[in-house]
Amino acid sequence: MEIHLKHNNYGKSSVRLTKVVRSNSRHELIELTVDTLLEGEFEDTHITGDNAKVLPTDTQKNTVYAIARNHPIDCIESFAETLARHFVGECGSHIRQARVNIRQQEWARMNFNGREEDTAFQSTGGEQATTSVVCTREELSVRSGLTGLLVLKTTNSAFVGYQCDKFTTLKETGDRIFATSITADWLYRSPGRTKYDEARKVIRTALLRTFAKHKSLSVQQTLYEMGKKALEECDAISEIHLALPNSHRHLVDLQPFGMDNPNLVFLPTSEPYGLIEATLTRD
Amino acid sequence: MEIHLKHNNYGKSSVRLTKVVRSNSRHELIELTVDTLLEGEFEDTHITGDNAKVLPTDTQKNTVYAIARNHPIDCIESFAETLARHFVGECGSHIRQARVNIRQQEWARMNFNGREEDTAFQSTGGEQATTSVVCTREELSVRSGLTGLLVLKTTNSAFVGYQCDKFTTLKETGDRIFATSITADWLYRSPGRTKYDEARKVIRTALLRTFAKHKSLSVQQTLYEMGKKALEECDAISEIHLALPNSHRHLVDLQPFGMDNPNLVFLPTSEPYGLIEATLTRD
Amino acid sequence: MEIHLKHNNYGKSSVRLTKVVRSNSRHELIELTVDTLLEGEFEDTHITGDNAKVLPTDTQKNTVYAIARNHPIDCIESFAETLARHFVGECGSHIRQARVNIRQQEWARMNFNGREEDTAFQSTGGEQATTSVVCTREELSVRSGLTGLLVLKTTNSAFVGYQCDKFTTLKETGDRIFATSITADWLYRSPGRTKYDEARKVIRTALLRTFAKHKSLSVQQTLYEMGKKALEECDAISEIHLALPNSHRHLVDLQPFGMDNPNLVFLPTSEPYGLIEATLTRD
Amino acid sequence: MEIHLKHNNYGKSSVRLTKVVRSNSRHELIELTVDTLLEGEFEDTHITGDNAKVLPTDTQKNTVYAIARNHPIDCIESFAETLARHFVGECGSHIRQARVNIRQQEWARMNFNGREEDTAFQSTGGEQATTSVVCTREELSVRSGLTGLLVLKTTNSAFVGYQCDKFTTLKETGDRIFATSITADWLYRSPGRTKYDEARKVIRTALLRTFAKHKSLSVQQTLYEMGKKALEECDAISEIHLALPNSHRHLVDLQPFGMDNPNLVFLPTSEPYGLIEATLTRD
Repeated sequence: MEIHLKHNNYGKSSVRLTKVVRSNSRHELIELTVDTLLEGEFEDTHITGDNAKVLPTDTQKNTVYAIARNHPIDCIESFAETLARHFVGECGSHIRQARVNIRQQEWARMNFNGREEDTAFQSTGGEQATTSVVCTREELSVRSGLTGLLVLKTTNSAFVGYQCDKFTTLKETGDRIFATSITADWLYRSPGRTKYDEARKVIRTALLRTFAKHKSLSVQQTLYEMGKKALEECDAISEIHLALPNSHRHLVDLQPFGMDNPNLVFLPTSEPYGLIEATLTRD
Repeated sequence: MEIHLKHNNYGKSSVRLTKVVRSNSRHELIELTVDTLLEGEFEDTHITGDNAKVLPTDTQKNTVYAIARNHPIDCIESFAETLARHFVGECGSHIRQARVNIRQQEWARMNFNGREEDTAFQSTGGEQATTSVVCTREELSVRSGLTGLLVLKTTNSAFVGYQCDKFTTLKETGDRIFATSITADWLYRSPGRTKYDEARKVIRTALLRTFAKHKSLSVQQTLYEMGKKALEECDAISEIHLALPNSHRHLVDLQPFGMDNPNLVFLPTSEPYGLIEATLTRD
Repeated sequence: MEIHLKHNNYGKSSVRLTKVVRSNSRHELIELTVDTLLEGEFEDTHITGDNAKVLPTDTQKNTVYAIARNHPIDCIESFAETLARHFVGECGSHIRQARVNIRQQEWARMNFNGREEDTAFQSTGGEQATTSVVCTREELSVRSGLTGLLVLKTTNSAFVGYQCDKFTTLKETGDRIFATSITADWLYRSPGRTKYDEARKVIRTALLRTFAKHKSLSVQQTLYEMGKKALEECDAISEIHLALPNSHRHLVDLQPFGMDNPNLVFLPTSEPYGLIEATLTRD
Repeated sequence: MEIHLKHNNYGKSSVRLTKVVRSNSRHELIELTVDTLLEGEFEDTHITGDNAKVLPTDTQKNTVYAIARNHPIDCIESFAETLARHFVGECGSHIRQARVNIRQQEWARMNFNGREEDTAFQSTGGEQATTSVVCTREELSVRSGLTGLLVLKTTNSAFVGYQCDKFTTLKETGDRIFATSITADWLYRSPGRTKYDEARKVIRTALLRTFAKHKSLSVQQTLYEMGKKALEECDAISEIHLALPNSHRHLVDLQPFGMDNPNLVFLPTSEPYGLIEATLTRD
């Protein structure tokens, strides 16, 4: 039995980039973190240390900045596609596939008395828009998403009727806090012909609105409803994956102090956490 | 020469608390992290291990939850004061001083087509409102603030005319990105008679507006102007301390690729960072 | 086209556990973080909110603690297998598959003048032993590994002869620092009949020794050699995957200060970083 | 009442540095993170934006690298002192004080079959050696310490006889796990004439050994004993400050599952945590 390379890839991770679009006095601010990952004929460097086919990860980083110079970066999907096509198309046939992941940090314009500032911005928190574009000579796939979107509802969430065994101590509840950090990603049907930003807006609103309005019987049921609504409201996607950690808020037992606690005071915990995941698709 | 205790304190850190105010169908959501720190006659436990005067940190934690049950927590300063007064007033004269620090995580109501949700919330990011209340039998001091407020301006920031020595390589710039994470804390003159939330709003707006509008010749100058405006616009405080890390966005050198870079493409870095701090006060 | 569930799973993540084995005066200390993930007939809870088949994640957590009570946890693989078999074997046929991931925090005995302490321990850093056991009614697979093993060599690492294009600015180097955080995972051939701890020791030493001794022409070449040696020296595994971030130490340019820098002073950076990954297997 | 600057300082934080000492085939590896903080006549830049007296933080960073080039960095205290003296002595009389903080990341030589490697290293975890040197024209003070030293003892720790009130639910225990992350800092009496590394070794061992051996009646008592022993065994220091978070390991209640738990299975938590601090001094 001989040892051999089954799979390999390499690239640059966490290339951070700020771009300011100054086409007029109202500036646009874009902040991204980019990963590039190449696959191809890279056996030589592994086996003999011959690097002739290795495009250095430092060059991949430079490429991100150079292409950002002229690309409008009006949406992260088109920028990721341009980068991926560059690696596959311009850097030699030994590169069979390029994957480009982008995460976008959100900034909002400052706003005083309803008037938006032209050049001053404020971070809007941990939410990030994401995309992962994979390009080969034959194919292009675009999977976009969002992560770090923290949401919480104070009612309309129950959990009853579950399986019990000898290790079950959880009490049924008809009204609990439901808090989670939404991570979603969806696959576009026709990458070339999609208005990504419009699709993203529709999907994001469907996820948020469903989370807010749904009378939840389980995290799973709400997750499914969120994914279903996203697919129903956005024709451009064929599939959506959702991961919803259950960020527990435990009701604090105040009885030792002679007090009731009618869903008023909770202990939020970071770990452990429930984790519910599903992928919904169209037939 | 004899060894002795010069100072000691103890308490519970990072007590996390969620409170839902359900007085009507429109719920209020409050999320806090509380530290309690006691000082007093605690030499015995150090020197002999006699714990008779030690109120366990576990009890301090319980106290936070029990008092939160009935306190409206309409502002973090009054909740911190109530907790601090409890420890100093109710737990024995051996406790000479209680310090209560609170950090508040911000949540905003979800909003669809301009209609706010009653029971669904969204995290607004890393900014936290803070307070640190110190209570003794004689005195009460309240120092409030904010932290993690990320802001960035794309112009109106210069840095020229600085001292140069043999190790200076920095180039002067008339137009750079100015990004920072504002940490501020201010001291109230008359803790008992202050409308904390109003004061906070005025100060926060003064800080943000000054950051946005100031034609900055140095981080220091902007910091000073921010503090000055906060003191001018809020009579209730006697002093303000500001810490502004300079979260560098370095202009990327694109000349090796035959490109100019007229303030378009930048590299954000996390470390190292400049750190500018000052305290402004009234005479 | 109808929307349907393509895949779903759920479980409890980051269940933290300390176990002290007190069979004699020399205690053993074990600290683990456990994830459980179930797959099976869980469509109902998604689609109708009927939770009858849902074993709560809270129960899964309880199960970890209850089984830890009597299990020796002499190795993480056997504990993970016991947990996974419990969920698949004892909790109903609707659970088709259980995955149990464990990460072990390392603790070393304190040691004074060469004498080990019986009951006092010291953390040995960020390295964690890992395992991921997947159990169905038909099959058991065990994939173990390690993560967070930070290593650095000050010489015997070169990078020359790579592909250059218009965006390449990197200079060739015959002698650079090579620093990385090793993440590895390997697949056992015969899960039931493996001495996991012995195998782990052999593989870990093979990885470390190869990293230390190899005259590296590229990160890829060293990675390949590390994986090859692990497969050669441990018959019990059929496959190994390695991920080696290139934790750059950039030579600082001291010429502006009239100084040379013969590989003495470096700037370590956290981002961006090169990322090299490969899987090696036997035919 | 006029607004004025009460205090100000500025500098560069988190300057990361790797130095390899290559005086022979056995290399030394040093990794540091340095903060520089200047105080002096910096009112102008705050008030008028005149930067003539501002030594840029970028220059401060360059200074760290340039001075590291020739300094042996055999101990962090002497390197910090050299840096601080440079700023106060060479950069103009408007700089009244320089503070230099250094944290040192530990690396150990790899070791195979008892033979140490000359050029390959392994991280030893989260512990860092620290120093904070403050230099004015008149004075030099050196406060060194350590942080992130995680320790745990499985027995010889009790907590009984504490104050109880209406919010106390904690049960007394004669035998609990005592886990903490030691942060200590100590003040040297005669900075110029101290062998820092020897002192550090003596103090560190005193802290660890006392933690391991002490029959603890409270965290406070062990803390006091640790500080006392450090002062007794190291004449070079006049004062020591210790901060010991109580990193709780809660006994898991297994009664619902019909099991006892004789101090075997624990739940480690990150928050909240007890925090015990004290400063011991000599008269």
